[in-house]
Amino acid sequence: MRAEIVSIGSELLLGQIVDTNAAFIARHLAAVGLDLFHKVTVGDNLARVAAALTTAIERAHVVITTGGLGPTADDVTREAVAQAAGRPLVFVPELLQEIEAFFRARGFTLSPSNRKQSYIPEGAIPLSNPVGTAPCFIVEQDDRAVISLPGVPREMEFLLVNRVLPYLRERYRFRGIIVSRLLRSCGLGESRVGEVVGDYMATGANPTVGTMAHLGQVDIRITAKADDEATARALIAPVEAEIRHRLADLIFGVDAETLEDVVAAGLGQRDWTLTVLEAGTGGLVAERLTTVPGAARRVQALVMEAEAAGRHLGVTLGSVAALAEAVRVWGKSRLAAATVIGAPDREAGQAIYPTRIGVATGGDGGERAAEYPYRFGGDFRQVRVRAAVMTLDRLRRALIAGSA
Amino acid sequence: MRAEIVSIGSELLLGQIVDTNAAFIARHLAAVGLDLFHKVTVGDNLARVAAALTTAIERAHVVITTGGLGPTADDVTREAVAQAAGRPLVFVPELLQEIEAFFRARGFTLSPSNRKQSYIPEGAIPLSNPVGTAPCFIVEQDDRAVISLPGVPREMEFLLVNRVLPYLRERYRFRGIIVSRLLRSCGLGESRVGEVVGDYMATGANPTVGTMAHLGQVDIRITAKADDEATARALIAPVEAEIRHRLADLIFGVDAETLEDVVAAGLGQRDWTLTVLEAGTGGLVAERLTTVPGAARRVQALVMEAEAAGRHLGVTLGSVAALAEAVRVWGKSRLAAATVIGAPDREAGQAIYPTRIGVATGGDGGERAAEYPYRFGGDFRQVRVRAAVMTLDRLRRALIAGSA
Repeated sequence: MRAEIVSIGSELLLGQIVDTNAAFIARHLAAVGLDLFHKVTVGDNLARVAAALTTAIERAHVVITTGGLGPTADDVTREAVAQAAGRPLVFVPELLQEIEAFFRARGFTLSPSNRKQSYIPEGAIPLSNPVGTAPCFIVEQDDRAVISLPGVPREMEFLLVNRVLPYLRERYRFRGIIVSRLLRSCGLGESRVGEVVGDYMATGANPTVGTMAHLGQVDIRITAKADDEATARALIAPVEAEIRHRLADLIFGVDAETLEDVVAAGLGQRDWTLTVLEAGTGGLVAERLTTVPGAARRVQALVMEAEAAGRHLGVTLGSVAALAEAVRVWGKSRLAAATVIGAPDREAGQAIYPTRIGVATGGDGGERAAEYPYRFGGDFRQVRVRAAVMTLDRLRRALIAGSA
Repeated sequence: MRAEIVSIGSELLLGQIVDTNAAFIARHLAAVGLDLFHKVTVGDNLARVAAALTTAIERAHVVITTGGLGPTADDVTREAVAQAAGRPLVFVPELLQEIEAFFRARGFTLSPSNRKQSYIPEGAIPLSNPVGTAPCFIVEQDDRAVISLPGVPREMEFLLVNRVLPYLRERYRFRGIIVSRLLRSCGLGESRVGEVVGDYMATGANPTVGTMAHLGQVDIRITAKADDEATARALIAPVEAEIRHRLADLIFGVDAETLEDVVAAGLGQRDWTLTVLEAGTGGLVAERLTTVPGAARRVQALVMEAEAAGRHLGVTLGSVAALAEAVRVWGKSRLAAATVIGAPDREAGQAIYPTRIGVATGGDGGERAAEYPYRFGGDFRQVRVRAAVMTLDRLRRALIAGSA
């Protein structure tokens, strides 16, 4: 069965934003076994959106639109779907009530233009949208379905996963399934990881193995195709076991697990608290850790330059291991890190930032501290992310070992 | 004149990579005055790529393809362009020599499959590619042009800027130009902004006006079309002036300017330093501010829960205005903020986080502090971003006023 994505928004054609929605949708459609043959982007123009939808409905069973569902005059998706499906727009009072409730809960007042959002094509199935104000809907046309989702990535992602995929599985009784397992590693570059698992990367194999690099991390994706999930997982298991054996403790987690998830879980297991000095990472380590539910009460951070931190903590700057220990004492915590990104030097025309990460454990009579030097190249934003990732990885290892 | 982008590559339809090329091309086409009405993505399938090109040539004067020019079997762009243009592929010895020279210079040996890359549609204009091995080409068909570029962003960008845009300006003697101006606002929802500027949002107007919402922010885009840049800017100016008049100090910046840029600039102009207590935003305010070059030496932050902060600072928790003042004194700074996100209550089935932002100024004998309450709904990550954005906005206003 075929699917097509129609992305709607002049800002996409003016190049003001990158369409990240399409990749997210594409991945999820692939996982249920829908083939995506076309993705089309059109601006906020009623005639062109309607024409794109007409073509899409001709060549695909499932058409997913994103964007153009807002309250303003340039939001034309509702009208365009109605035109392409040959139906009038009708007012759905329940949708208006939902929008009103959403606004009331936040203390906002509804504006008249929000009323427009309660109109959907006649006979369409409304999709309630608890994460935003744009009501979404599905128009069923013979064996086809046109599914209209918001352009805001968080809303679209929530609705796709929680409303659309269950709907598609139910209506089209998808068999054939694609299952992916992600092994997440930190500490080796992508080409080194590629060498270690290279014998699994032949095309046409089942499961297939691929690598994806983020800043400071490499994900290894194992993807199997089978008639049912159990069979797919059985194909993945021995490959995963062998790759884990080869990469050992370089693998920190699986699937959606992040380094911060693992560090936060480690803090919980040991019932430890953590204090971080961020002299260069600017709050990034704390920001990542505190996104993990429940972690905020175990994590605190000082964001300031190293010299200012030395004055605050009453230590002379020297080893960052000693700085980490001073941070730990200041924060009255069992674990601490001090990350200091130095002024860049230039090497082969590239800015290289010498970075030192200190880790300290103690508070139980057995104080220990260690220091790890790095040299990160690239633009400063990338360097910050790499330094934050390596700080989290050093904390993860200290939590596993129970000491710095 | 109309342009269309055809992005070629199954990896785009599997969602494994995000198509950043399209936004880059779109921006550059807009700048020379080409209207982009459609962008289409197809996989590595000869028949579908050829069909997409045939449609594109019918409805656009300039068709730009990216991807599918590599040496492997799944690279079908050359054959598809030849089919759509009704011409055979011919071998061009000079292209093979160029590829050989590129490989030789790097100490690589040519593989037989690279020979395939020296075939281009008969009569096509070859584009030399000094930054990669994929030869590119332009097929002229009556008044139309099909321009095939590589998928590798660095190569595509070089060729577009240095080969394609000069070619288009020369061949079509472009006069028209599209200029966009972005006004960035904080503090009103998109529907309210849409109402305030709604009279400018009629389709067919010149300039056109549209809105785009981010978390806590709304951008207003004013786009004008004219024969030259000065005329386009003159069309934009009165609309911008009127919208600025209506939205007044809700507009914090223009074009690529961010709230953190504006706050960092304000700190520099007043020669102030800032300390932020982040009890809930987890470091996000500091992280944003310290991405601005040079801002790190003016910004410090404490990331911890409100109770822990109270203990550290020796204040009893009550007003966050008083907390902000204690943070300011602790940080020895002229400006401070304290952002405290409270435990959520539920309303209409949704988690709502009561959030208080305190702002304090002083250090010159005239201490002042104020407190602003908010109620943010949504998932916690969104709430954090909204709270960080509103903190930055409150700091911006304090910097404009010179006091909390």
